[in-house]
Amino acid sequence: MTPGEPAGVGPDLCVMLAQEPLAAPVVVFADPGLLERRAELLGLPLTLIPFDAAEAEPGSLRILPVPLTAEAQCGRLNPANADYVLDTLRQATEGCLNGDFDALVTGPVHKGIINDAGHTFTGHTEFLAELTQAHPVMMLATKGLRVALVTTHLPLSEVSHQITPQRLERVIRILDCDLRRHFGLTDPRILVCGLNPHAGEGGHLGREEIEIIEPTLERLRQGGINLAGPLPADTLFTPKYLQQADAVLAMYHDQGLPVLKHLGFGRAVNVTLGLPIIRTSVDHGTALDLAGSGQAGIGSLLAAVAMAGEMVEAKHRV
Amino acid sequence: MTPGEPAGVGPDLCVMLAQEPLAAPVVVFADPGLLERRAELLGLPLTLIPFDAAEAEPGSLRILPVPLTAEAQCGRLNPANADYVLDTLRQATEGCLNGDFDALVTGPVHKGIINDAGHTFTGHTEFLAELTQAHPVMMLATKGLRVALVTTHLPLSEVSHQITPQRLERVIRILDCDLRRHFGLTDPRILVCGLNPHAGEGGHLGREEIEIIEPTLERLRQGGINLAGPLPADTLFTPKYLQQADAVLAMYHDQGLPVLKHLGFGRAVNVTLGLPIIRTSVDHGTALDLAGSGQAGIGSLLAAVAMAGEMVEAKHRV
Repeated sequence: MTPGEPAGVGPDLCVMLAQEPLAAPVVVFADPGLLERRAELLGLPLTLIPFDAAEAEPGSLRILPVPLTAEAQCGRLNPANADYVLDTLRQATEGCLNGDFDALVTGPVHKGIINDAGHTFTGHTEFLAELTQAHPVMMLATKGLRVALVTTHLPLSEVSHQITPQRLERVIRILDCDLRRHFGLTDPRILVCGLNPHAGEGGHLGREEIEIIEPTLERLRQGGINLAGPLPADTLFTPKYLQQADAVLAMYHDQGLPVLKHLGFGRAVNVTLGLPIIRTSVDHGTALDLAGSGQAGIGSLLAAVAMAGEMVEAKHRV
Repeated sequence: MTPGEPAGVGPDLCVMLAQEPLAAPVVVFADPGLLERRAELLGLPLTLIPFDAAEAEPGSLRILPVPLTAEAQCGRLNPANADYVLDTLRQATEGCLNGDFDALVTGPVHKGIINDAGHTFTGHTEFLAELTQAHPVMMLATKGLRVALVTTHLPLSEVSHQITPQRLERVIRILDCDLRRHFGLTDPRILVCGLNPHAGEGGHLGREEIEIIEPTLERLRQGGINLAGPLPADTLFTPKYLQQADAVLAMYHDQGLPVLKHLGFGRAVNVTLGLPIIRTSVDHGTALDLAGSGQAGIGSLLAAVAMAGEMVEAKHRV
């Protein structure tokens, strides 16, 4: 696990995680002093132990030390620590790639401060894709609903240009493949949103459905992928459709995630598909105002750790 | 009330409405034979009575006759009836404008077939705006959530260009004014979505928030309008934010409506603000496959009729 931004709630969540019974051992890539100071603030016990310790008592946490660049203060972003945040991610990813670890669980980072420090960084998903030389697909999951995205963190005005047959086909193939490989589904049923309101209403509200989405879905259906759509996003997220779906594919961020987070906030998990490693993440941000307060909720992190464990098991079963 | 597309469930809903006890008299603008044939199909009693009849027994329906152009068959769209659909809307709107009626409730129309018949028609909302020479604002409402839209039925690729300070200011002023005038709220609290994912994340994911939305909200706040935002759409629709809101303003159709319809499907109402008349509508489409089957749900129409009644009362109280 990487705790993410040191001024946010990530370190708090690691300390809280140390108090929980877990199905599999979790190793945190972080600055030891940062975690100890946060434990004091929270009034929780914390004993840091080596990452390969045989046993861990409640209140102890396996750690692989990564030093902070500058001191971390709760709620105060410091561009000097952007390198630290990226280092924890690089080292943890490397550990998964070379087989030392089964999965990566990430805490929340602050994109703005990493960019302010001079790094081009649009999100974990994109960063991990570059590290692992892969095409990632972002999916959020909560009880009863999985939503994957064709495009992720880009200005709305650029979304339409990014919906190409190539990208759509790649994303659908990865989604289909990983739902089988990591979620134990033998014939995953995927509902695909249109790009435009009412899925373009027969071309009257945009032509991407007719020119790009429909032909691509038809070609992939012929190849045996179980796809429905393109469907209007405002009718797709209703029981009639969702009951028959294993996942929804939204064309862009704010088309699919408001419903998912409304349904699952505090318990939703962000999963990156298409990587050579298993990666899950909390679904929330750095919550700078809650760092050190004891008010952060650990629901999403526990769900992310549990889902990573289930994905590892499903992979071994396939 | 206008039943909308004659091949869809609109006529069914009128027949079903005739069986319900209503707080205020409803007059339907429609072809009498169409309603009688649909009642036979549904096996429901129907007695058509003059629009100004003093009393209406259960099973009777007040009607203002508008003749179909061609015969209407369940589930079969016919462009020849597009003029009929628009005529019912024109006559009912005229009746509201000249004070004969208090409010207009509309059933579902099929935009595609009206366009195929040679009329430029992007939606009820836009059509009524032209008829009444007004700037409309589309709002959907269900128990616990109201969502208004800055832009409505246009291709996604055009949304960003349409988010101007002028449009944003006009929409917010209308929303604020009509929440006071028609919903009995004395200081409506409005949460405003950003345009881009994460509300632009400080300019890293788009600059419309910084250049257009924030300055406009600030100016309107100074004028006494109770506004929060721009907020990320995927965190705004969670209890923490919604508990303090009277309405959410989304920048475009699929940013706001999937959550609302997920929450309220079958019971949501579409309201047009900013018109010189009160207008509500069902939140669903023509459901061509259900016409004449008896399977159509009347929940949204009953909610639309009830909301129109409440808006009339609130207006008289102001």
